[in-house]
Amino acid sequence: MYVPEPISKLIEGFMRLPGIGPKTAQRLAFFVLSMEEDDVLDLAKALVRAKRDLRTCSVCGNITDQDPCYICTDKKRDSSVICVVQDTKDLMAMERTREYNGMYHVLHGAISPIEGIGPDELKIPDLLRRLGDETVQELILATNPNIEGEATAMYLSKLVKPFGLKVTRIAHGLPVGGDLEYADEVTLTKALEGRREV
Amino acid sequence: MYVPEPISKLIEGFMRLPGIGPKTAQRLAFFVLSMEEDDVLDLAKALVRAKRDLRTCSVCGNITDQDPCYICTDKKRDSSVICVVQDTKDLMAMERTREYNGMYHVLHGAISPIEGIGPDELKIPDLLRRLGDETVQELILATNPNIEGEATAMYLSKLVKPFGLKVTRIAHGLPVGGDLEYADEVTLTKALEGRREV
Repeated sequence: MYVPEPISKLIEGFMRLPGIGPKTAQRLAFFVLSMEEDDVLDLAKALVRAKRDLRTCSVCGNITDQDPCYICTDKKRDSSVICVVQDTKDLMAMERTREYNGMYHVLHGAISPIEGIGPDELKIPDLLRRLGDETVQELILATNPNIEGEATAMYLSKLVKPFGLKVTRIAHGLPVGGDLEYADEVTLTKALEGRREV
Repeated sequence: MYVPEPISKLIEGFMRLPGIGPKTAQRLAFFVLSMEEDDVLDLAKALVRAKRDLRTCSVCGNITDQDPCYICTDKKRDSSVICVVQDTKDLMAMERTREYNGMYHVLHGAISPIEGIGPDELKIPDLLRRLGDETVQELILATNPNIEGEATAMYLSKLVKPFGLKVTRIAHGLPVGGDLEYADEVTLTKALEGRREV
């Protein structure tokens, strides 16, 4: 079947994105044809700029358009706490809470023997360098609550012991709005273990 | 929450596409950061080219990068049959069958009083102009098998009566691989009505 080249190229382009199969790619491509030319140009420019202008912060590993990033350079933030996350999306999720005002360290992954990711593949040396500095007093381990995340948290907590810092792990328990009836056993056990006096 | 501008622009851009909400847009934007620069440039170029180089064929209404389109200019195709479809995606679906070798006419919609689309909003005058020519002998109505598509097919079949053409409607029935048990009554009734001797 012959499809005009500009549209087949666009369909191919969309199909390179995650979770977009041939049908969705075709739908998106036809939608682009119906968009205003300016909007299409904006999207094309945004793609190029995002790829060209963004880099990882040399201090914390966050994705940024300036180095060091806006968090590392923000004087209003508390530089005595570092929250360790797996990736920038996790950092953004933490920021959305508006409850945390410390620094971050983005590992760019988690220890996963199955995927062949060991501690050397993560930004752990950078983290240790930051801890050498006297200002840091607490390290919050906010890796994901799954096997890889837990392994990474365990590994880090042992690794940073010599620094004599306060090392904490974010709490496990029932998600807000959740239902006890549908909670899995492990989560419920953790919620019970982590119970606090009211 | 502060997000570097290049990334927030890209997220906004993706969110303008259909079926892409904030979470998916964020996932796509971060994926773009991990893509090869050349692939990102290709996608950006494909967007711009698709918008700039594609137009509708002045004969059949198909989306094309040359006018008349590759189907209208293909000498090997049978110009005595015109298949009427609602939009280019339907044309592409017909082409995928590799069974049809005639011409097309793309209406760019279907009659829908609810959405305020009457016959005047569709490319019906163009169709009538094509029928005036002696070569056309059959008109296949391949609008969608729903209320709007049926209404459009009925309207067209009455409208083209004066031309004395053979006017056909694509068959309704059970989809191949379907299950009688789960077929709805209307489809099953149509399948029964349309039964053929074997």
